[in-house]
Amino acid sequence: MADELETLGQNAKKAATELARLSSKEKNEILARMADSLEKNSKKIVEANKKDLKASDLRTALRDRLMLDEARIKSIASDVREIINLADPVGEEIGKDTRPNGIHISKVRVPIGVIGIIYESRPNVTVDASVLCFKAGNAVILRGGSEAINSNIALVEVMQVAGLPKGAIQLLRDTSRETATKLMRLNKYLDCLIPRGGAGLIQAVIQNASVPAIETGIGNCHLYIDSEADLQMAEEIAINAKCQRPGVCNAIEKIVVHEKVAKDFIPRAVKALGERGVEIKGDEKARAIAKSITPATEEDWYTEYLDLIIAIKVVSSLDEAISHINKYGSHHSDAIITKNKASADRFLKEVDSAAVYHNASTRFTDGNQFGLGAEIGISTQKLHARGPMGLRELTSYKYVVNGTGQIRK
Amino acid sequence: MADELETLGQNAKKAATELARLSSKEKNEILARMADSLEKNSKKIVEANKKDLKASDLRTALRDRLMLDEARIKSIASDVREIINLADPVGEEIGKDTRPNGIHISKVRVPIGVIGIIYESRPNVTVDASVLCFKAGNAVILRGGSEAINSNIALVEVMQVAGLPKGAIQLLRDTSRETATKLMRLNKYLDCLIPRGGAGLIQAVIQNASVPAIETGIGNCHLYIDSEADLQMAEEIAINAKCQRPGVCNAIEKIVVHEKVAKDFIPRAVKALGERGVEIKGDEKARAIAKSITPATEEDWYTEYLDLIIAIKVVSSLDEAISHINKYGSHHSDAIITKNKASADRFLKEVDSAAVYHNASTRFTDGNQFGLGAEIGISTQKLHARGPMGLRELTSYKYVVNGTGQIRK
Repeated sequence: MADELETLGQNAKKAATELARLSSKEKNEILARMADSLEKNSKKIVEANKKDLKASDLRTALRDRLMLDEARIKSIASDVREIINLADPVGEEIGKDTRPNGIHISKVRVPIGVIGIIYESRPNVTVDASVLCFKAGNAVILRGGSEAINSNIALVEVMQVAGLPKGAIQLLRDTSRETATKLMRLNKYLDCLIPRGGAGLIQAVIQNASVPAIETGIGNCHLYIDSEADLQMAEEIAINAKCQRPGVCNAIEKIVVHEKVAKDFIPRAVKALGERGVEIKGDEKARAIAKSITPATEEDWYTEYLDLIIAIKVVSSLDEAISHINKYGSHHSDAIITKNKASADRFLKEVDSAAVYHNASTRFTDGNQFGLGAEIGISTQKLHARGPMGLRELTSYKYVVNGTGQIRK
Repeated sequence: MADELETLGQNAKKAATELARLSSKEKNEILARMADSLEKNSKKIVEANKKDLKASDLRTALRDRLMLDEARIKSIASDVREIINLADPVGEEIGKDTRPNGIHISKVRVPIGVIGIIYESRPNVTVDASVLCFKAGNAVILRGGSEAINSNIALVEVMQVAGLPKGAIQLLRDTSRETATKLMRLNKYLDCLIPRGGAGLIQAVIQNASVPAIETGIGNCHLYIDSEADLQMAEEIAINAKCQRPGVCNAIEKIVVHEKVAKDFIPRAVKALGERGVEIKGDEKARAIAKSITPATEEDWYTEYLDLIIAIKVVSSLDEAISHINKYGSHHSDAIITKNKASADRFLKEVDSAAVYHNASTRFTDGNQFGLGAEIGISTQKLHARGPMGLRELTSYKYVVNGTGQIRK
């Protein structure tokens, strides 16, 4: 249905112009009405969600992610109200200069324009992504999964409140793969594409998109235990970073240990993680220290488990640790535990990741934890934005030049 | 030759790590040696360039762009020396925060990593692009046109000076289209792709690249003469923006005139531009005012002529002018001439371009004119960078987090 895309694209483009004109006050009033509307219409949303649940043959964990009840809708509405309190980045002057010829140049934040969001089963993303894009003055075209289509239709309808430009928040009803691919190539209308989902989705976007896209959320994160680590701290951080919420992108998937402390650290880590139900893999050196460790394959070092599984690698130097992380990691979040400042500085400088940590858990890579407010995703690429993306990262800028008739000599 | 790409990619990745460690002082010393080396080896470069000129069957204008002589090499070397004076963006702290739990977060500029540059016949780009990328700590893989291959090989050889990491500046010798397409999909090694060339090249990159790319340099720029314009100023700016250097992206290709001043402005514009050899096209309303104007087709409104050609459109309102520019323009640089502040403000806010001007020539959209120093290109997309891209725009950033054992609750 290329026609649906064409219509959505035209509407979104038109809405983007209107959105760019709204004041912060107007946008916040609309957000407040949206939150109210979500609560007031929660029955309707739950009904639609029941249809999706009935149709789904998802595993229990995925069913749970798909499920909406009154409490969850209340929580979604409350998240919308939090966006009201965040500073509006649009219009912020981020640079200025008066040149020798008298022209005055101002660099001003503006909305990106029209953003496409492609995401998987969680219907709360429908609201989160829409309101973040809206607050930054962007129109969105949402493409959720087919398993949540009824919930998504209901949520988008309920978000249509007075004052919201028609076309500001739209859902692609055709959830076929072919149409998703066409959306990725809709350069005529889209300024940017943000995929939110697993590695398969991200790869599909990288391979197929001609619209500028932002690679997000794949976290094959490492914890490196240096030869001069405080092993008690290392153990606590390993447990936190692996077990507190194993299904998220900032959880660690790998422990890299310096050989000097491997004999002390690995047995206690195996015990502590094992007690918490973690399956432990490792290289030959790690297995020589703890027999319960099963062999890790080459592929394991690249894998984001998103589960209670971890792989341990023993290295003989900081250099080897850095090389290993840069080679196999996903450039998301990686930490070093050490008392040695020089080693920490080298790790922080040379590990090529969005967030690098010294003596802290990787679990902090998150818009709220970093003080940016809500986030639309965590970028693991180098262009535009890196790490947690908040409202500012949903803007572009333009140069506004005022003159009195200047021409170039 | 996928093998050549693989080798270049590996070398570049390795060099990127070494480049990130170089101090500003070390980089500047290398740049000084490069400039000296270019001058010292100018004979060798001219010899290689002669081979290219001999082999080429290019039109005279293109031959001139390809040609290198001692004077041009001196000028290229002098541009290299100017890069030494620009501030090094790498390491700049662009944000910091200590969170309630005591972790300290610093947002620091870092090199992008490995940048691919695909460009057309001008061999000076080989040096310009290399040294800008180098100063910002990036490795480059250059893919120039086949018609300049001997010049490019010589220039890259001459830039290899003591202290420059092997693999920092590399040229793809295979200039086939297939290999260029493979370069655009070399995600394993490339962090970013910057095409520099005409609309055909830019489109090929948008359609084929899986590496994050930056759309640059297509300028279908507009000059809008408002109903309250100073017509003398309008005429001077029209002449400057069209004729001072018609082959560049910030020259205007279109004049949009409010109908209230069309009868006064069009005849004088036709005279002034005609005297300077400009071919003038226009819509029916413009042609009704000046008979010498030839008809503009629908395609004309989208076209970047890069030549002494212009098309004139008459509109009945500011709204129509803004809509026309947003629909047909390339979002590069557009100007309004008016004495009315409110009209200027609307134009500056609503025209969706990298640079918007009030009472000044679009010819100022340029890294040097904007005070950024040399530029690698002018971005016409919204992500990462918009408008002239200087050294800062050749960097990314990372979050550096220092803790004392913090875990997430």
